[in-house]
Amino acid sequence: MPTEAKKSGRLIKAPENFLAQDDVKRPELMRRKFLAASVSSAAASIAVVGIASGGRSAHAAPGAGDPNILNMPAHTTGLGMPVAANPYGLPSQYEKGLQRRESPGLTRVSAASVAFTPLQGTFGIITPSGLHFERHHQGWWDIDPSKHRLMVMGLVKTPKVYTMDDIMRLPSVSRIHFIECGANTAMEWGNVAVPTVQYSHGMVSCSEFTGVPLSVLLEDCGIDMKKAKFVLAEGADGSSMTRTIGLDRALDDVLVAYGMNGEMLRPENGYPLRLVVPGVQGVSWVKWLRRIEVGDQKWAAKDEAIHYIDLMPDGLHRQYTGMQEAKSVITTPSGGQTLLDKGFYNISGLAWSGRGRVKRVDVSVDGGRNWRTARLETPILTKAFTRFNIDWVWNGAPAILQSRVQDETGYVQPKINQLREIRGTRSIYHQNAIQSWKVAETGEVSNVQVY
Amino acid sequence: MPTEAKKSGRLIKAPENFLAQDDVKRPELMRRKFLAASVSSAAASIAVVGIASGGRSAHAAPGAGDPNILNMPAHTTGLGMPVAANPYGLPSQYEKGLQRRESPGLTRVSAASVAFTPLQGTFGIITPSGLHFERHHQGWWDIDPSKHRLMVMGLVKTPKVYTMDDIMRLPSVSRIHFIECGANTAMEWGNVAVPTVQYSHGMVSCSEFTGVPLSVLLEDCGIDMKKAKFVLAEGADGSSMTRTIGLDRALDDVLVAYGMNGEMLRPENGYPLRLVVPGVQGVSWVKWLRRIEVGDQKWAAKDEAIHYIDLMPDGLHRQYTGMQEAKSVITTPSGGQTLLDKGFYNISGLAWSGRGRVKRVDVSVDGGRNWRTARLETPILTKAFTRFNIDWVWNGAPAILQSRVQDETGYVQPKINQLREIRGTRSIYHQNAIQSWKVAETGEVSNVQVY
Repeated sequence: MPTEAKKSGRLIKAPENFLAQDDVKRPELMRRKFLAASVSSAAASIAVVGIASGGRSAHAAPGAGDPNILNMPAHTTGLGMPVAANPYGLPSQYEKGLQRRESPGLTRVSAASVAFTPLQGTFGIITPSGLHFERHHQGWWDIDPSKHRLMVMGLVKTPKVYTMDDIMRLPSVSRIHFIECGANTAMEWGNVAVPTVQYSHGMVSCSEFTGVPLSVLLEDCGIDMKKAKFVLAEGADGSSMTRTIGLDRALDDVLVAYGMNGEMLRPENGYPLRLVVPGVQGVSWVKWLRRIEVGDQKWAAKDEAIHYIDLMPDGLHRQYTGMQEAKSVITTPSGGQTLLDKGFYNISGLAWSGRGRVKRVDVSVDGGRNWRTARLETPILTKAFTRFNIDWVWNGAPAILQSRVQDETGYVQPKINQLREIRGTRSIYHQNAIQSWKVAETGEVSNVQVY
Repeated sequence: MPTEAKKSGRLIKAPENFLAQDDVKRPELMRRKFLAASVSSAAASIAVVGIASGGRSAHAAPGAGDPNILNMPAHTTGLGMPVAANPYGLPSQYEKGLQRRESPGLTRVSAASVAFTPLQGTFGIITPSGLHFERHHQGWWDIDPSKHRLMVMGLVKTPKVYTMDDIMRLPSVSRIHFIECGANTAMEWGNVAVPTVQYSHGMVSCSEFTGVPLSVLLEDCGIDMKKAKFVLAEGADGSSMTRTIGLDRALDDVLVAYGMNGEMLRPENGYPLRLVVPGVQGVSWVKWLRRIEVGDQKWAAKDEAIHYIDLMPDGLHRQYTGMQEAKSVITTPSGGQTLLDKGFYNISGLAWSGRGRVKRVDVSVDGGRNWRTARLETPILTKAFTRFNIDWVWNGAPAILQSRVQDETGYVQPKINQLREIRGTRSIYHQNAIQSWKVAETGEVSNVQVY
């Protein structure tokens, strides 16, 4: 078999195949001897596998007649799958249960609905793009980027239409931010404790976004700084989502993004272009972005007048309430999970704030009587998930687990009754209260409200 | 149609469907009127789409008889795909060309080969898990986590065998780190300029890893600190990969990881358990980790004696050379790409160091005569990718693009001839020289070596 291959007209030697054929044979013989020796001398290591597989492997059973193979599983004795078997890799077959899921009956049309991120099974601060929550108003599309355009118009000197190629040549920035639907955890307003953290808090995700600062595009078109006060963002889907953004914010950290977690946006998340409005509710992160208009007053678009308004106890509505205040939730253990037995557990969760960095997270295991400060994983970034962890030894008695975040502005996550005192019980949006998980003596964990 | 759904025996109202049926009808009528008005008044917006699609859409053409629809593409007028159409989301159909790829003929068996990350198409610092590079020595397997075990043994008071459940109950940390194969960019030692950055530098990726510090497991088993000097890590695949790690490092930032980019490790990357050895070459990040042994001397395992050694000009080998020194590369523009025309470009690339943080990256467009300092994207993390960007106006003349990183220890990335003076040309591993991309007058970019 050749150890060299012809490529670009030149002979390329493999990095680890500089040996001639005879040289190759010798180490191979040595290697076989080595493996045989391992089997007899490294009994401890085989014992582990024996325990692991109970003498049976999930893969094809090894040849029973081979005394050297013993009970080793196929993956320890055989040749596995080749590289690039999946040119684009996927999770293990054993992880298929971890999916984003629609809450059945939540809306009347699945194209205008929500699929929730399974926070109970995620780690760290990056949400896998395949599990990023979805909220569409008219369904999602996989738009051809070569045909997609972005127009910038209104109070600018030179309105312009950009191709994707145009945009990707401009100065680029990358930043890690959370995105949360304003309606996340909405059920808890009405004292409906949905069973799992996926359905209670799963309309939030966190990714690394890459794109062009909106300020660069506005400058490129010659924004009229004397008249301009607001910016409108419009999406290309059937819902024609349009959202007003104040000019200060538009010139601050807003991005016109094409990248998410290292690759192009996913179609469900606005491919090929979406707005990133750090700290602000997800509806303003307009997907399939096709138009930016600069104006001098708010637009009161349909999704600013009919939806995404907060009904207050006095019957009036709060409008233009986009800020996502500091919030946290324990993701493990959480509703629907079961503790296997007494003993040590790692309590893990997420905290975030639309106003900046997370400063501190406290955790209670007795319904808020006593609190301990959790460890925060790094990096701690502005308007991004922060992962917290804390040790816990469960003694088998009923327990109520809570987390409480404080952000760098000093704001402390409220209790649900503190929120209700001001906002009533008929709101939909901006429910950021402390979440409580009850651990029963059986180890079963469920969603409860603690006042 | 019901606006409520029965769930867990309770009536759950949808967050945005608190309206009664009659209320629902009224806004729907208003919305239809609103949409019709948009079509006639927002002509500018329609013009954009007209340019974008040239009057034709990639999707089904809208009904030609409907005067309100004009030439809008289907995605602007129709109902799209429902949520959770992909319970685990995938990239756009238009991104299918971005794949990890095997270099044909690089090795004799594809199960013991390499698939490279397409760095030319990635953004930011997080490598999408589906595009993470692969390097297997005996192929990859999808191991049943319920049957997998990790044994910790050797110079410890109490050898233990851990199940995955055991490990996931222990204190957990999450950290973003790069992993680079020691043989990355190996071809350049021998003056073979492979055509693209995917094949020249694509054996490096960067992810957020989650797991248990190895130090926690060693303490749990009562490591004998008087005798212990080294740790051996062994994988469960057919290659029985075994690697020696010094005790200082093992007790520092090494992780026994199960999480990568927010979810469980991918099978190709060692599911369900791998070692994370920040800053050190990938071969030490043992995949499908099944055994940790504590000992008092180096093991000189086959992949420490036959492979992963550096052949020096005097004929001797350097052994146990795991450190990945500071390195950087421009990923856009890079070999195989073509500049569309003269004018503004964003030069973007990656820098990393096995010894800590990236301090600074300089970029030259004239083969190293003049240098400008690039912008570094945040966060800048230890032993992680740092993304750099810098503006460039191409005047149409031939150019040679280079990047040069300096890390926080003061180390500066060398030129290829500086490396060769010490290491010769027969090395395979640890090639971290400055990479040069030549831009021709045609705009075509190719790999060249500049001394």
